[in-house]
Amino acid sequence: MVEVGVLRARFDAIRAFTETLCAPLAPEDYVIQSMPDASPVKWHLAHTSWFFETFVLREVKGPPPSPAYEPFDPRYGFLFNSYYVSVGERHSRPRRGLLSRPTVEETYRYRRHVDARMRELLAEMEAGRHAALAHAVEVGLHHEQQHQELLLTDIKHALAQNPLRPAMWPPEPAPTRLPGSRDPGEACFLPYPEDLRWIGHDGAGFAYDNEAPRHRTFVHAFTLASRPVTCGDYLAFIEDGGYTRPELWLSGGWDAVAANGWRAPLYWERDEGAFQVFTLRGLREIDPAEPVCHVSYFEADAYARWAGARLPTEAEWETAAALAGLATADGPPGAQDGAFAESGRYHPAPIARGGGGAPQRLLGGVWEWTASPYAPYPGFAPWPGSLGEYNGKFMSSQMVLRGGSCFTPRSHIRSTYRNFFPPNARWQMSGLRLARAA
Amino acid sequence: MVEVGVLRARFDAIRAFTETLCAPLAPEDYVIQSMPDASPVKWHLAHTSWFFETFVLREVKGPPPSPAYEPFDPRYGFLFNSYYVSVGERHSRPRRGLLSRPTVEETYRYRRHVDARMRELLAEMEAGRHAALAHAVEVGLHHEQQHQELLLTDIKHALAQNPLRPAMWPPEPAPTRLPGSRDPGEACFLPYPEDLRWIGHDGAGFAYDNEAPRHRTFVHAFTLASRPVTCGDYLAFIEDGGYTRPELWLSGGWDAVAANGWRAPLYWERDEGAFQVFTLRGLREIDPAEPVCHVSYFEADAYARWAGARLPTEAEWETAAALAGLATADGPPGAQDGAFAESGRYHPAPIARGGGGAPQRLLGGVWEWTASPYAPYPGFAPWPGSLGEYNGKFMSSQMVLRGGSCFTPRSHIRSTYRNFFPPNARWQMSGLRLARAA
Amino acid sequence: MVEVGVLRARFDAIRAFTETLCAPLAPEDYVIQSMPDASPVKWHLAHTSWFFETFVLREVKGPPPSPAYEPFDPRYGFLFNSYYVSVGERHSRPRRGLLSRPTVEETYRYRRHVDARMRELLAEMEAGRHAALAHAVEVGLHHEQQHQELLLTDIKHALAQNPLRPAMWPPEPAPTRLPGSRDPGEACFLPYPEDLRWIGHDGAGFAYDNEAPRHRTFVHAFTLASRPVTCGDYLAFIEDGGYTRPELWLSGGWDAVAANGWRAPLYWERDEGAFQVFTLRGLREIDPAEPVCHVSYFEADAYARWAGARLPTEAEWETAAALAGLATADGPPGAQDGAFAESGRYHPAPIARGGGGAPQRLLGGVWEWTASPYAPYPGFAPWPGSLGEYNGKFMSSQMVLRGGSCFTPRSHIRSTYRNFFPPNARWQMSGLRLARAA
Amino acid sequence: MVEVGVLRARFDAIRAFTETLCAPLAPEDYVIQSMPDASPVKWHLAHTSWFFETFVLREVKGPPPSPAYEPFDPRYGFLFNSYYVSVGERHSRPRRGLLSRPTVEETYRYRRHVDARMRELLAEMEAGRHAALAHAVEVGLHHEQQHQELLLTDIKHALAQNPLRPAMWPPEPAPTRLPGSRDPGEACFLPYPEDLRWIGHDGAGFAYDNEAPRHRTFVHAFTLASRPVTCGDYLAFIEDGGYTRPELWLSGGWDAVAANGWRAPLYWERDEGAFQVFTLRGLREIDPAEPVCHVSYFEADAYARWAGARLPTEAEWETAAALAGLATADGPPGAQDGAFAESGRYHPAPIARGGGGAPQRLLGGVWEWTASPYAPYPGFAPWPGSLGEYNGKFMSSQMVLRGGSCFTPRSHIRSTYRNFFPPNARWQMSGLRLARAA
Repeated sequence: MVEVGVLRARFDAIRAFTETLCAPLAPEDYVIQSMPDASPVKWHLAHTSWFFETFVLREVKGPPPSPAYEPFDPRYGFLFNSYYVSVGERHSRPRRGLLSRPTVEETYRYRRHVDARMRELLAEMEAGRHAALAHAVEVGLHHEQQHQELLLTDIKHALAQNPLRPAMWPPEPAPTRLPGSRDPGEACFLPYPEDLRWIGHDGAGFAYDNEAPRHRTFVHAFTLASRPVTCGDYLAFIEDGGYTRPELWLSGGWDAVAANGWRAPLYWERDEGAFQVFTLRGLREIDPAEPVCHVSYFEADAYARWAGARLPTEAEWETAAALAGLATADGPPGAQDGAFAESGRYHPAPIARGGGGAPQRLLGGVWEWTASPYAPYPGFAPWPGSLGEYNGKFMSSQMVLRGGSCFTPRSHIRSTYRNFFPPNARWQMSGLRLARAA
Repeated sequence: MVEVGVLRARFDAIRAFTETLCAPLAPEDYVIQSMPDASPVKWHLAHTSWFFETFVLREVKGPPPSPAYEPFDPRYGFLFNSYYVSVGERHSRPRRGLLSRPTVEETYRYRRHVDARMRELLAEMEAGRHAALAHAVEVGLHHEQQHQELLLTDIKHALAQNPLRPAMWPPEPAPTRLPGSRDPGEACFLPYPEDLRWIGHDGAGFAYDNEAPRHRTFVHAFTLASRPVTCGDYLAFIEDGGYTRPELWLSGGWDAVAANGWRAPLYWERDEGAFQVFTLRGLREIDPAEPVCHVSYFEADAYARWAGARLPTEAEWETAAALAGLATADGPPGAQDGAFAESGRYHPAPIARGGGGAPQRLLGGVWEWTASPYAPYPGFAPWPGSLGEYNGKFMSSQMVLRGGSCFTPRSHIRSTYRNFFPPNARWQMSGLRLARAA
Repeated sequence: MVEVGVLRARFDAIRAFTETLCAPLAPEDYVIQSMPDASPVKWHLAHTSWFFETFVLREVKGPPPSPAYEPFDPRYGFLFNSYYVSVGERHSRPRRGLLSRPTVEETYRYRRHVDARMRELLAEMEAGRHAALAHAVEVGLHHEQQHQELLLTDIKHALAQNPLRPAMWPPEPAPTRLPGSRDPGEACFLPYPEDLRWIGHDGAGFAYDNEAPRHRTFVHAFTLASRPVTCGDYLAFIEDGGYTRPELWLSGGWDAVAANGWRAPLYWERDEGAFQVFTLRGLREIDPAEPVCHVSYFEADAYARWAGARLPTEAEWETAAALAGLATADGPPGAQDGAFAESGRYHPAPIARGGGGAPQRLLGGVWEWTASPYAPYPGFAPWPGSLGEYNGKFMSSQMVLRGGSCFTPRSHIRSTYRNFFPPNARWQMSGLRLARAA
Repeated sequence: MVEVGVLRARFDAIRAFTETLCAPLAPEDYVIQSMPDASPVKWHLAHTSWFFETFVLREVKGPPPSPAYEPFDPRYGFLFNSYYVSVGERHSRPRRGLLSRPTVEETYRYRRHVDARMRELLAEMEAGRHAALAHAVEVGLHHEQQHQELLLTDIKHALAQNPLRPAMWPPEPAPTRLPGSRDPGEACFLPYPEDLRWIGHDGAGFAYDNEAPRHRTFVHAFTLASRPVTCGDYLAFIEDGGYTRPELWLSGGWDAVAANGWRAPLYWERDEGAFQVFTLRGLREIDPAEPVCHVSYFEADAYARWAGARLPTEAEWETAAALAGLATADGPPGAQDGAFAESGRYHPAPIARGGGGAPQRLLGGVWEWTASPYAPYPGFAPWPGSLGEYNGKFMSSQMVLRGGSCFTPRSHIRSTYRNFFPPNARWQMSGLRLARAA
């Protein structure tokens, strides 16, 4: 378990970073919800505070002298509970964008209120009380970091609906790449022999319940691409008729192509000439050296089939990360530069021509779709209590993604981290990397 | 045609009144759209400005020295055109609530820009130029008044979706009625003999194209209730099982009851005890003496059948108004007190026990559903040009309402005014008055 | 009231004609339901029998010696009640096509059972008993005739969904027209002066409740086209871009064009070359001299606007029919030849060049959309009891059609007959005739 | 590869068995389609014939003297192709129930035509020609057996929609069980140690492509219930509020409960008293000793959570089957009695109190939902050509079921057989068996 002093510092830093991300927004931007799967920024701000209120502050039942927590507004539980049925009724998700009140200012006052009480509690914890709450605080911080990413994906989706295509930040001031970086070169396929591997989190440091227990799994020999698929690679797929050839697609994917008129990744638009891409820094040209992102699992799978390859399973992906010594993003320097939320780039950085035999950019840049449906590990047990609803109940009809993205805070990601979305989701920072049987 | 000096004064007053109505709103409130039929406040503010820009300012083609109009932002035409296909493409109506930009502040800047150019133009018109534009200016002002009403109905609907039930204005400070007003007494049915009547606007002053031409119609003998149906009347219908007895309903109405779970007028809610009603001044008890409002045509029709009566046709309604000398709301004093948008009441005032033989409250309070489907008058011709899309193209599957409401500006209404909505619409200030064959 | 002997003969003839119409069908054809608005043939056969069972046979409460009616199967009431809520619960309309049982053979047995009891009852009535039931018998016969038409429209729609385009009858053996009939010539517009007219049924012979009471209405001067719009006329509208010009359409019509991809009347299909039309005698070329049919009200209205005309009101249409002496299809010979269900043509006959000053083909051929929304006549009272649900409860969001079609039995139609369908309905035999203000 | 003589005998037997199953149906029954996922019986009869026509007969390109195949009707390819996009366009699946033509009789004629040509071809194959087609013939036979099962599940669903609840066969004439069989006793949990296991088909005899390649997988220690969950077990779950407790359900499952109003397995209905169940032999009482069937994956998963257990993975299930020596249903006698399509029972037989240590009823009775999402085995390669669309393209958002059911022909099932359906599917013969970590 992390030390309380560290927890306190991280509480301040993480709560502040959420607000830093929101700094460029007008009050109007906080309100809108562009689809049922996305939430308004205002809702993210309030929900993360509600999380601390509900799973930490309201658990303070002593020992004295801690007074019982006084909620900021008893009606907020209904408004800002996301999906915890054991905690109580909640407002309908697709209707979050209909709430103009509480206003943005009131929402920030709510955060201030929760922050103040949390700091009092953390001080008491440093004094040795309420040790049992440390886990919930840590979950709350990782939860807030997840919502930092969601806040960015959701406001990006919302702004993209506006015909004015408003940018959240100004365009990159400097050139985004050195000369010569235009071409990351062909990916090579790194070989991995068959083995009985240990997969899952080993319990050192924080992990979600769905990363445990660590267990053995037999991994067949495979090869893994040295880098993610780039926009340049993906353009070749489009130009080869990738979106018009049903034989490349899963049946559900082909249905999605037809139903949604997919012709390119989300946020790509073409006005006669070349593709442009909408980013949080505005609309601009595609960079062929960047990892492709905002593709669904269905598109990732179709691309892989077109390329004579397949997606890696999550066990293969984790094997490669483990062999590369990448437990966290604090691992070996270099490969992950510029690829997390703190970079201020808000888009995956282009890939330079790689060297050496290790896979590039496993962590950061884009989440990588795997071939693995999201399912419990052998012996999986959800966290006890209401937090058990965090992960386990979503284990159907979703696919696992690995590695984190340029919207993920650096300290949030791990090589055992299991993200998951339905196979037709495109508004996340999702890309892909190829694999093949050896 | 109205004098330009009068037009100029009305321009200032009407444009200012729109903004007065918005004064209590936070920026967040301007953004939300609660259903496809309703629009965000911000959109109403911009659309009414776009209307002057498009149908007046852009028509300035000389004579010199008038310079051609420079639009505030050429992209706003796409965003703020409502339904004028002859003017160009437009943003999808159900997606108006996804637009956080332009911000509220930018929207007001847009209004300022249009106001300034309009005032320059009106000054030129006073100097005798651009006489041909006077009609479009006048239409623009009535159009803006219509949107004042819609702005109120739409924000009311939006705020009512919020579980916090936020009020736009504080509760009425003083008692809303004198002692004794609780009971308006039984309505009586005033008799009208059969006759060949002249119906429609006679051309003196402004009217919409759908009110013309004035024409003869044979009106059979009928009786008309001396006052609208009240909440007290309507409660008796509910308590008598009105919403559970299919024989009282049109087939389409009964389908709507089932599909939407209607059990009372919109905005009525019951938590075990008595009904409460949501108003722009917050949630409060039902007043039995108030006209019932927020009922659909289907509910109005079912109520009438239950009461052994029917709704009046629009010709009958207009006959009664004409015989009462009610051409406009500047007619005989008394009956209309407190029943228009300027009253600051934002809810229909209770009805006092009536005297004399004239029908009470024909104008103001609540729009009254008639039994008449919205159809062209004999010889109807839409306005020429794009403004011809204003009314005529909506002449199917809608019912006519008459009389204006407590959300209607007093100077906007006329006894020949034909409002129209689909028979299942409930978010307008719609009530009813009974009639019978004589 | 019609004589019982006549009633008896008509009962035999009408019940037999229903079965004659079904003769070409395979058992499989009786089952299918192609959309919620249409019903399987099997259902029509059973429902019309249920009608006699419910509204006639079950009303036999004496006097002795009539025994109480024994229903064929007590569960059929649930299956074959269409919409009479006062009679009891019923099977969901869109699910009628899921019923393979009762089989076709059982359904015919059900008819036999009802026919036998009805004949016994009619014999008793001839002997002077049960006089009170004569009206319900007569309604039941007209009801059956209505379902003869619906049976044809519904099976036509169902067969048209089949890529094999199966025909119900073989192609017309002989040429459908004499030489020279290809061109009916330009329609001319016959003038009618303004007048206070009597409209509605005068009570001599059978009429539905919605045709009464006969009443005065002021009809402004108008002109009416001498013939319906033909396929040739309508082709010119299509070729002039009629389906791509929003200014020609009501707003709801333009939405329907977009939502349904309308580009021509229902059942017209084009494979590069000329249009073909699907009829109950198979797919064949369009005949320009035939009245256009299977157009919605929205298309009829758009066509009229394109032609610089409008649709007639029902009062105008009925005025013209009255002045032509066309109370029923037994009126002046000639004009109606080959235009009713008995003709065996099952498609509107081409129009020959007209002579004289009377409008051609007012009765038969195609139903003609009018500009009149379906609403009660002044003083309208539905039939007492459950039969009051026959017509009155559908008086919203529908438009009136007049005149009957080539699917209507000749003895069923009257000049006062008011048919009604929603403005987007196209599967009925619906066409149009133009009118103009004089 | 199977011998041609055997293939020929199986062709005759399997094609005949399909028609035997249909013997009780009226022509009307063949037509109806009760939901998009189900198909009319007529369609199954034609589609299985089309399969032989397309993948076998049309492949006959010589050597001489085989003449090229003359299709029965060239338009049938469009009507009866299910989902093979590489073969051509096809009729919309949800509209299969709109086709009354070809009639049942024509459909049988189509079968006769295909059968005759197939028998000629099989004769030639016995003579040593066309050896390359043997695999497609074998696939066609297994395909037909799959459709025998689907034909039964689909007609059951269709008949169940009919308020008359028509039975396809008469009720079981004799008692379905011996005295004492009412109570199969508590299930016990049989232990299996951890091991690296071989999973998948070994290539001896026919298997689908998705059962290969045989490969190693690490199976953790587990226990498996000795018998499937019974109706008696499941009733306890219902009575304990299983359908009203969200904590027992996956999130998607809870949504499905709410959206569909699930309160019991499909086909269970309660009229105040005890549950009845609709079977192909009519409506009758629940037998607590029968395996529960017609539950979705979501219900199976919720039941398992309620019971403090989980579903087995497909590797666990296959391990247990392999250790019991159950490669096919021709394995050890006894346990599978009366549990396949040939039994004429058309419902899972009740379970007798078990003896010994082997799991009862792994094959037959009910398909058992596993915890495994349907995904490719390591090294999976679809069949070449169009038949590659058979299985692979459905590998998303489906769960694997194992073991076959009382609707499955005995010779069709294998212990490596992987069936798959979406987690909310209930119209298949799907039940469950519990597992636990050891």
